[in-house]
Amino acid sequence: MGGGTIEPRTLRGFADTLPALAVHRRRLLRVVEDTFASFGYDPIQTPALEYAEILRGKGGAESDKQMFEFDDAGGRRVALRFDLTVPLARFAAQHQAELRPPLRLYNIGYAWRGERPQRGRYREFLQCDADVIGETGVTADAEILVMFQTAFRRMDVGGVLQRVNDRRILNGLLADLGLAGSAVPVLRALDKLDKVGRATVRDELADAGVPGGAADRVLEVVATRRETNEATLSAVEAMVTPGGEAARGLDGLRELLDLVGAGGGDLGAVRFDPSIARGLDYYTGTVFETTLLSAPEVGSVCSGGRYDDLASLYTTTRLPGVGGSLGLSRILGALEGTGALRGSGRDRELVVVTQARSDPVGTLLGLAAAVRATGAYDVEVYPGAVRHGTQMRYADARGARYVLTLDDPESVSVKDMASGERTSLPVADVPALLAKAAGEPAG
Amino acid sequence: MGGGTIEPRTLRGFADTLPALAVHRRRLLRVVEDTFASFGYDPIQTPALEYAEILRGKGGAESDKQMFEFDDAGGRRVALRFDLTVPLARFAAQHQAELRPPLRLYNIGYAWRGERPQRGRYREFLQCDADVIGETGVTADAEILVMFQTAFRRMDVGGVLQRVNDRRILNGLLADLGLAGSAVPVLRALDKLDKVGRATVRDELADAGVPGGAADRVLEVVATRRETNEATLSAVEAMVTPGGEAARGLDGLRELLDLVGAGGGDLGAVRFDPSIARGLDYYTGTVFETTLLSAPEVGSVCSGGRYDDLASLYTTTRLPGVGGSLGLSRILGALEGTGALRGSGRDRELVVVTQARSDPVGTLLGLAAAVRATGAYDVEVYPGAVRHGTQMRYADARGARYVLTLDDPESVSVKDMASGERTSLPVADVPALLAKAAGEPAG
Repeated sequence: MGGGTIEPRTLRGFADTLPALAVHRRRLLRVVEDTFASFGYDPIQTPALEYAEILRGKGGAESDKQMFEFDDAGGRRVALRFDLTVPLARFAAQHQAELRPPLRLYNIGYAWRGERPQRGRYREFLQCDADVIGETGVTADAEILVMFQTAFRRMDVGGVLQRVNDRRILNGLLADLGLAGSAVPVLRALDKLDKVGRATVRDELADAGVPGGAADRVLEVVATRRETNEATLSAVEAMVTPGGEAARGLDGLRELLDLVGAGGGDLGAVRFDPSIARGLDYYTGTVFETTLLSAPEVGSVCSGGRYDDLASLYTTTRLPGVGGSLGLSRILGALEGTGALRGSGRDRELVVVTQARSDPVGTLLGLAAAVRATGAYDVEVYPGAVRHGTQMRYADARGARYVLTLDDPESVSVKDMASGERTSLPVADVPALLAKAAGEPAG
Repeated sequence: MGGGTIEPRTLRGFADTLPALAVHRRRLLRVVEDTFASFGYDPIQTPALEYAEILRGKGGAESDKQMFEFDDAGGRRVALRFDLTVPLARFAAQHQAELRPPLRLYNIGYAWRGERPQRGRYREFLQCDADVIGETGVTADAEILVMFQTAFRRMDVGGVLQRVNDRRILNGLLADLGLAGSAVPVLRALDKLDKVGRATVRDELADAGVPGGAADRVLEVVATRRETNEATLSAVEAMVTPGGEAARGLDGLRELLDLVGAGGGDLGAVRFDPSIARGLDYYTGTVFETTLLSAPEVGSVCSGGRYDDLASLYTTTRLPGVGGSLGLSRILGALEGTGALRGSGRDRELVVVTQARSDPVGTLLGLAAAVRATGAYDVEVYPGAVRHGTQMRYADARGARYVLTLDDPESVSVKDMASGERTSLPVADVPALLAKAAGEPAG
């Protein structure tokens, strides 16, 4: 063994996260989690591996093909989850005796898909899901939109655009056209509109048995865009049967937008877009997608919607709800290197204690512990007695705010790395001095 | 599809985490992560899946057998990581050009082993690893012990015992006995001493070619226990060659214990135990294990040690270091239902806003947003307009501190769930009142 005989490498589509990015990943994750908690959502956790039969067929043929599926040592057919929604459905059905709706739950974890790697898309990605289960009122739909907006605002990653729609609009339109049975293939075709263009979608609709005239009508509705949400709502309203399902969808969207505004949301960041389809079959009302204004090309970074019945495959209990899923890996991938991930990502400023061969090491560790105990700083002792210049360069590269160097066993030289100033003072006085300085601006 | 046709169940050894436990999991995870950060450790992240050749043979035959290993859709032989140490070694070798030692890194993530499920042992478990890479001084060893002690203290899960040893003691002893080449099988045998007993270990030592007299000598040393660490150190010292490798190990332990005390550690929670072996080959100096005083039977919940060369399989660069791994799933499993996981696990108290059919929902959402914006509370609006009594029972079951009910569009009744008191006041005054109350004790 040894001698570097195995090439150190990661699998295609799987990436290590180095500290410079990982500190931001950690910061964003905390913001998302804290935002969910501040809206009363409780955490749950489900396993990465599930029985394959739990996951298979739930995300369509594409998801099945991309699933990491295998036989375990006990001969069970198992698979890595490809999202957190299917596990949530299984979870809700399995624990319905212990957990009584209404439930506000969030689940943060990795999911895996063997899709073609590209910018912002990985085979392993971190998802942050939140759902309200057990209620059908539009209050929860508005809350989900406002909560994810709040998370993005607190993440401080630039503006976002939430594009919302209601499934009932398209369902009602298809019913009007005598095509109620074709909703699934029509939705799947429309979901690709942005990527493949109108002509290809029209061909796919024809394949699904939608006559040319009806396809044109559907494409006309989904292409509707006006200056304001109200203008778009009115324009679509003029194309559908008054009092029908589509009209109810439009009324629902009006109410939703009102509540987003009342609930502290930013209506300027929400756009009614009748082309938003979401490929998944189980959505029945509100659907939404979110793009980063600075990187719309990576696609949706947060999407979801309302469902009438989350877990019908696993239980006869009807579980309506609404939820969303924020793709943290995709956000980090999109923003990496753009300057949008500002600051050090640290919660506190850093203090480095240098180490000389003649230093009593216990004094260094004790000093570090005392400064750390103020709660105001992350504190590290340089882990070896190398040249002082090397340690200063290290502290500088780490972005340290202060460097502490022992002058003698009783006194410390404190260097403020922002101003360059040096102060010498007794060891015992250092924690109080730095605690006081922590509240003051740098320089 | 539908009608509950698939049984909702998890795989053997894999468990869902329900909110009551998941809030504590989240709290403990934050404490560990924040403790690592406060000692200057930076986060990294490595993938769950690795090339099987990266992982195979690194944890011994047992780990190989327990590995979830399979062919992916591209025909690659892949496996789920069984710990975070082997991925760290691969990571350190792969990124050595970008990351210059000394490095303080932490990695938190799940690992998977197909071992027999039992109390506190799962097939999927959350590990929190931290390592100092690139320095050989004992400062870092002391820091690791103190840092994990700090994490346990801040986790508030009762006392722990850190049992420490130094590999050089046994290596020196074996050299004295002319058995330097038998270190690996001897360590593996000794690592099982607690579980299988002295007689079985003696048989295994005989199988490894250790003569009976030498085996007795080894077993005598590892069984040495005295009232104080210094007494145990002296007792073992009397059994080994003065000035030899074992004696250097004992000197190293003395220095380590001194530094743990100087660095703010609790020496009463550290015990020199010459039987601590750690089965893994790569440890070369300090080794340690940690048990919960309230649940010693679940075994070590935090262990690690010093290595001379972390990544020798992947690179010719020598990477010495010291690290430890805290098993959060095992801790949660051990403490679940014991009362040791105290409190709600929430960062803030909860406020529930009730909803009546006649309420202007926008007002409810706006009120919730304003109280939430104080930063002092988690705030939820009941997501439907059901009976008020049902909503009060819900708020009570959720442990809400205040319940807000709209009397009319302009005024709110605030119920203090601790004292039972009710106050009625204008909607606009509620956030300031609750913000003020947040600093005051309940009741």
